[in-house]
Amino acid sequence: MSAYADPHPKHLLDFHDWSTERLNAILDNADTMSKVLDRPVKKVPALQGLTVCTVFFENSTRTRISFELAARRMSADVVSFAASSSSLSKGESLRDTIETLTAYKIDAYVVRHSASGAAHAVARFSGKPTINAGDGLRAHPTQALLDAYTIRREYGELKGRRVAIIGDIRHSRVARSNAELLTRLGASVVLCGPATLLPRDLAGEGVTLTTDAKAAVKGADAVMALRLQTERMDAGYLGSLPEYIAGYQVNEALLEDAAPNAIVLHPGPMNRDLEISADTADGPRSRVLKQVEHGQAVRMSVLYHLLVGRG
Amino acid sequence: MSAYADPHPKHLLDFHDWSTERLNAILDNADTMSKVLDRPVKKVPALQGLTVCTVFFENSTRTRISFELAARRMSADVVSFAASSSSLSKGESLRDTIETLTAYKIDAYVVRHSASGAAHAVARFSGKPTINAGDGLRAHPTQALLDAYTIRREYGELKGRRVAIIGDIRHSRVARSNAELLTRLGASVVLCGPATLLPRDLAGEGVTLTTDAKAAVKGADAVMALRLQTERMDAGYLGSLPEYIAGYQVNEALLEDAAPNAIVLHPGPMNRDLEISADTADGPRSRVLKQVEHGQAVRMSVLYHLLVGRG
Amino acid sequence: MSAYADPHPKHLLDFHDWSTERLNAILDNADTMSKVLDRPVKKVPALQGLTVCTVFFENSTRTRISFELAARRMSADVVSFAASSSSLSKGESLRDTIETLTAYKIDAYVVRHSASGAAHAVARFSGKPTINAGDGLRAHPTQALLDAYTIRREYGELKGRRVAIIGDIRHSRVARSNAELLTRLGASVVLCGPATLLPRDLAGEGVTLTTDAKAAVKGADAVMALRLQTERMDAGYLGSLPEYIAGYQVNEALLEDAAPNAIVLHPGPMNRDLEISADTADGPRSRVLKQVEHGQAVRMSVLYHLLVGRG
Repeated sequence: MSAYADPHPKHLLDFHDWSTERLNAILDNADTMSKVLDRPVKKVPALQGLTVCTVFFENSTRTRISFELAARRMSADVVSFAASSSSLSKGESLRDTIETLTAYKIDAYVVRHSASGAAHAVARFSGKPTINAGDGLRAHPTQALLDAYTIRREYGELKGRRVAIIGDIRHSRVARSNAELLTRLGASVVLCGPATLLPRDLAGEGVTLTTDAKAAVKGADAVMALRLQTERMDAGYLGSLPEYIAGYQVNEALLEDAAPNAIVLHPGPMNRDLEISADTADGPRSRVLKQVEHGQAVRMSVLYHLLVGRG
Repeated sequence: MSAYADPHPKHLLDFHDWSTERLNAILDNADTMSKVLDRPVKKVPALQGLTVCTVFFENSTRTRISFELAARRMSADVVSFAASSSSLSKGESLRDTIETLTAYKIDAYVVRHSASGAAHAVARFSGKPTINAGDGLRAHPTQALLDAYTIRREYGELKGRRVAIIGDIRHSRVARSNAELLTRLGASVVLCGPATLLPRDLAGEGVTLTTDAKAAVKGADAVMALRLQTERMDAGYLGSLPEYIAGYQVNEALLEDAAPNAIVLHPGPMNRDLEISADTADGPRSRVLKQVEHGQAVRMSVLYHLLVGRG
Repeated sequence: MSAYADPHPKHLLDFHDWSTERLNAILDNADTMSKVLDRPVKKVPALQGLTVCTVFFENSTRTRISFELAARRMSADVVSFAASSSSLSKGESLRDTIETLTAYKIDAYVVRHSASGAAHAVARFSGKPTINAGDGLRAHPTQALLDAYTIRREYGELKGRRVAIIGDIRHSRVARSNAELLTRLGASVVLCGPATLLPRDLAGEGVTLTTDAKAAVKGADAVMALRLQTERMDAGYLGSLPEYIAGYQVNEALLEDAAPNAIVLHPGPMNRDLEISADTADGPRSRVLKQVEHGQAVRMSVLYHLLVGRG
């Protein structure tokens, strides 16, 4: 029996309850949504009369707008609840907030929070379909889905593909979610970064670790650079920026031993000429803007699945 | 002849111009709106093509979202004008702001302001249907309507019911609006709090005052706890929190002499274990989340009445 | 051959690429939009399925709401991107932001920025129809269009009309855009202000300069007062406020030699009794609220033209 037994998971908090079949269905349906986005009138009535609430405790305008547009393009109403402008600052608890919103008859939640597990809490308090849009260092499942979708669009399938993820692995929910999803879908993943930023416990079936970027990239079909938070240096995780750049910047020299048509990914926003060289970021290998575009199709697919596709 | 002579009041600023018949019509219509909210597609075209503007000079995400959803569920467009992000900070007057918005052809206003009378000013400057969503210490009529509606849903009618309101009566527009509305609808009201927080001039027909919470609650069908602003202590209105809790916290011990099925209300957000005990807040008597839910139905009813129901 | 050769300009950044014929078509179409705004249901399906993004790097609630309502009244979806709440504060570049939004399939941009040329940059990065809602000291074309439309509504046409613009000409994109547009449409323009605030290079065909407000207003059909930023005094551009008021305040005494039915304009928000007297601001000559109202019709016309009217 599968460890992912729920045939119709109610939430997308991480991939634990999700069967591989269902994850592939999300990606298949994103193809349909992509076609909607290619039409002049980019709107369908699928979620007419439903209300999606974005609950962002961390500021992320990009991700919020991506979800908001995904919902509105399926004719849902969207309400935005920004923690900073709310009575949470008056000491109201997360539970009270979510119970109040749920009494307003919100149909689904999209949650971003700096604390791992916050999206699980929202799902529990609301009892409504909840999408984790990033919680602490734990998970960011729609980012991983859009990365997987971007690679799939390039190669037809994930099976047998080799993906290198390079940078501050330790503090990256993107790396964690990608490592889990990509291996589930049949790819192999190499996580690479300075030893201080590369937690040993992430190694597992299909996931290898290395501090050698050249080795990580060798033969890779896709190379993902992670955003470097320069605050990490103050915390002692990193030496100097020049050292980091010399060892781990994704650039044309590093990509020499990658697969000939290897693509380059980045979750954005990019620090050009820090974790990625400007010419690679804007060059022919880059799929960074495709990731953004596919993110909307994938989020439409997830919202559709959770709100109307389970019946 | 009634003191509330206007058969079709244009605004809901307080209850002065409203006949009891019309107030009951609002509550009757809230039943219809509640049924809309119970449907899978919670949307009707009643206000299609109309634009409602929320003008909030005090931050209240809960109340703003409640009105916004009420309007959008009747297919109105909603524009939010938050004073902090506006040119009011450049010294623009309230009058200029409202006249400008009115020139944009806004169809109705929802106003929250820390100054008593601000909603009246908006009604005068705009000439458009205006709903007071709380002005200073004066009035919060939709809160009172949702409280009345919640009690009515419980008991069928307000007539003959006894309602105790406990806490900082002095600084509560909720208490003022409730005392007026509930007595108009045939209930009797007991206002209760420490002497410093209990203005003598609120006593009147159907409204009694007491500093003794046990006496207030005796035989009550509904008990409302008011949020305690701890700032009041610094201002000398209150002794210590333990004293306040001992005397005025709404909890199971206090409720012993209430009517057997007495319900508990709170305008939210609650300070659990301060003005209300956590077990009462979350226990079987609590209608706190029902209040939130009914608030949306009542606000839909008010918006409908003012925008299309007067013809 | 005309200097304004493009028969179908893609953007409205300034008036350089716009033929006079096309500018008149925008104003003609604003008449149609005005009629929509006079109907009880102020909404048409013209932009159904399209998404307009307002990108405001300077705070201007009035202008943003005017564009937002213009778009929504034609059934477009609107996304607001406020620079302060975005990752631009994390050092993300304007280019990255616009490329990201464009990958979300935004159909048109409305841009406000303190830097001259920012709207041109957005047009270049996005490749999508872009409207300049004010960039630095350079241009504010929809403000000039609404001013021209307001004068045209009054007099039937601009040809032969004399317009005086009084105040801080140096720091006013409104004055620059108006001088260009009004002369293009056949009016003559007098720019007037203290010598320190009156750049000599603005004189040109149909545009005269003077420091004498009495002379500027003489025979004028329309007199526009500009908002005075009191910060200018600290910068040494101005003497005292009483001096400014005595020389340049638009008031009934100054208007004595204007055309008998001369109208008064102001881009708002007004400093009453500074650059304009309160009685003139609120008197029968004032068209200030008409400007606001016409602004919405003109912006609807511009959005319609750029998004669907070019085909």
